[in-house]
Amino acid sequence: MKRRDFIKTAAIGGTASAIAMPAIAQSAPEVKWRLTSSFPKSLDTIFGGADTFARAVSESTDGKFQIQVFAAGEIVPGLQALDAVQAGTVEACQSALYYYWGKNPTMVFATTMPFGMNARQQNAWFYQGGGIDLLNEVFAKMNFYALPAANTGTQMGGWFRKEIKTIEDLKGLKFRIGGYAGKILQNMGAVPQQLAPADIYPALEKGALDAVEFIGPYDDEKLGFNKVAPFYYYPGWWDGCATGHVCFNLQKYNELPKAYQKVLHNAAMIANLDVQSKYDFKNPQALKRLVAAGTQLRAFSPEILDASYKATQEALAETASQNADFKRVLDSYVAFRNDQYLWWQVAEYPFDNYMIRARSRG
Amino acid sequence: MKRRDFIKTAAIGGTASAIAMPAIAQSAPEVKWRLTSSFPKSLDTIFGGADTFARAVSESTDGKFQIQVFAAGEIVPGLQALDAVQAGTVEACQSALYYYWGKNPTMVFATTMPFGMNARQQNAWFYQGGGIDLLNEVFAKMNFYALPAANTGTQMGGWFRKEIKTIEDLKGLKFRIGGYAGKILQNMGAVPQQLAPADIYPALEKGALDAVEFIGPYDDEKLGFNKVAPFYYYPGWWDGCATGHVCFNLQKYNELPKAYQKVLHNAAMIANLDVQSKYDFKNPQALKRLVAAGTQLRAFSPEILDASYKATQEALAETASQNADFKRVLDSYVAFRNDQYLWWQVAEYPFDNYMIRARSRG
Repeated sequence: MKRRDFIKTAAIGGTASAIAMPAIAQSAPEVKWRLTSSFPKSLDTIFGGADTFARAVSESTDGKFQIQVFAAGEIVPGLQALDAVQAGTVEACQSALYYYWGKNPTMVFATTMPFGMNARQQNAWFYQGGGIDLLNEVFAKMNFYALPAANTGTQMGGWFRKEIKTIEDLKGLKFRIGGYAGKILQNMGAVPQQLAPADIYPALEKGALDAVEFIGPYDDEKLGFNKVAPFYYYPGWWDGCATGHVCFNLQKYNELPKAYQKVLHNAAMIANLDVQSKYDFKNPQALKRLVAAGTQLRAFSPEILDASYKATQEALAETASQNADFKRVLDSYVAFRNDQYLWWQVAEYPFDNYMIRARSRG
Repeated sequence: MKRRDFIKTAAIGGTASAIAMPAIAQSAPEVKWRLTSSFPKSLDTIFGGADTFARAVSESTDGKFQIQVFAAGEIVPGLQALDAVQAGTVEACQSALYYYWGKNPTMVFATTMPFGMNARQQNAWFYQGGGIDLLNEVFAKMNFYALPAANTGTQMGGWFRKEIKTIEDLKGLKFRIGGYAGKILQNMGAVPQQLAPADIYPALEKGALDAVEFIGPYDDEKLGFNKVAPFYYYPGWWDGCATGHVCFNLQKYNELPKAYQKVLHNAAMIANLDVQSKYDFKNPQALKRLVAAGTQLRAFSPEILDASYKATQEALAETASQNADFKRVLDSYVAFRNDQYLWWQVAEYPFDNYMIRARSRG
């Protein structure tokens, strides 16, 4: 064969080979997406979950499905991440969906509701109790699809410059707390304020805020609240857990091959477990450092918890009377939660109870 | 081009194309493995985790890495699953590694130790606290590699024909309980017996057993223990959680491309979260059915828990003095557990406490 003929045949052969394997080419196309996070890189716990998610997607597609992750503000402001996904400006985002409860209050159940479930219970609702599908019926009307992909566990009740002993102490309290819980605290007399993470510390330092709730020891320590507010309250009754989601533009999600949709579901589960284990790993050490540096732990009094619980029930009932989606998801969530705590009090809770007492005895 | 020439070029083209893509062929070879489970198909919770694992592996390799799952007894008896993996008879198994503590008592920490951690804490130890690597250093000497791939959560303390009020009531008690916990109960005067699931009910019915511990409401209900033994005790202090593992013959695991090893890690995480959510979903309903059918719930008395805790510390110290691997992993596990419960008692436990009381109040 002459050299010219060989070149010709090789070219034809290349075409023949491409024709021979359309099935593989179609089932595993090259896809490149961008994901914008609501969180800064410095929150390596939850923001790290976006990296874990993107890496798992790549690992599960032999590198063919690449998701490039951007921190809050790099291409989209943190609290507009979901808007960008709805508009199709980016294909995906990582966020806490209760930030957007103004769009539809039903979104609180994606993250968690006040006096809701703990992390394991909420995962059971998502994965086995129909929670993912129920929420996505609502989200489809808003042009996105969402999957659980992070959890913080139970959060702290926040940092207070002064002790909070009675409900009277909440009156007029300038409290950095967002979302639906802010509405409830407003009903109880507090003055909720929503501030981006970078703005919280200066406001607390100069007295524009009396109190701040954020996440838990590891994340809170980084923002330095303990230097200004000595009293660290628990538990964060509005965040018995908090689920972070990855969200996809609905059309972009629907256009994916079924196999890639499944890869997204798998990768989100991996990120969910990964982020939870990182919080559980990092919070104990941070708590010890904070207490050693002078932070004083305080439990919310039974009076405050009971009043908060009552105010929560009133707010939920009011919203349910105004929004059919909210009512439908609330009914599912609450029934599931009540069964979960029936079981929890039998084996899990008595075990934890004994172990906590055994540790205290030394 | 004449037809003869076309055939020739097409053939050459095919070869050229095969030469052009060895990288892809090497990175994603066709692999077929067999996995034998220690569990029967009827335990759809934990056995189902093996299916979830195999499915995730297939989904993450475009179907190129296939793992065929066999239930206990189909190709290998349930309690010999790990032996088959060590010998290379099968490439993989699903099991509870504390079944094999006779090979090396260090294996108890893979499943859980008595008075150990709850499920979330143990996952944090596995994934972030070095637990997976620490255990696999030991397992490498035994020719296998293991990954967490299921969790039951806190188990029940079992079914008793008569009430157990004092330590005296444990004396001579013929108790179906396996593993390292059986050794501890033997030190406390009980007579532990290890029986395969299918043999337990007949032994309990005819009085050859006085008591049986198995898993929790959903699995236990299937085996019918409630028909013979009315008292259902909690908590199962020997199983604050129980992690099921997938294990691989070490040579077979090492021969895999790095990308496929990563796929196994990812798939095991998916199965771990999936099985936990199934147990959490199914146990509350089963508990309600059991109580409605006459089962009487009983808490182990503080006296019995304290005596069990003391007997556990003595057994752990004795084994640690005899086995350096055991001591090294015990030290890591206990330090991690103590920090975990320090944090747990601050946010997670008070939240659960309030929610349990709120549910009881209605």
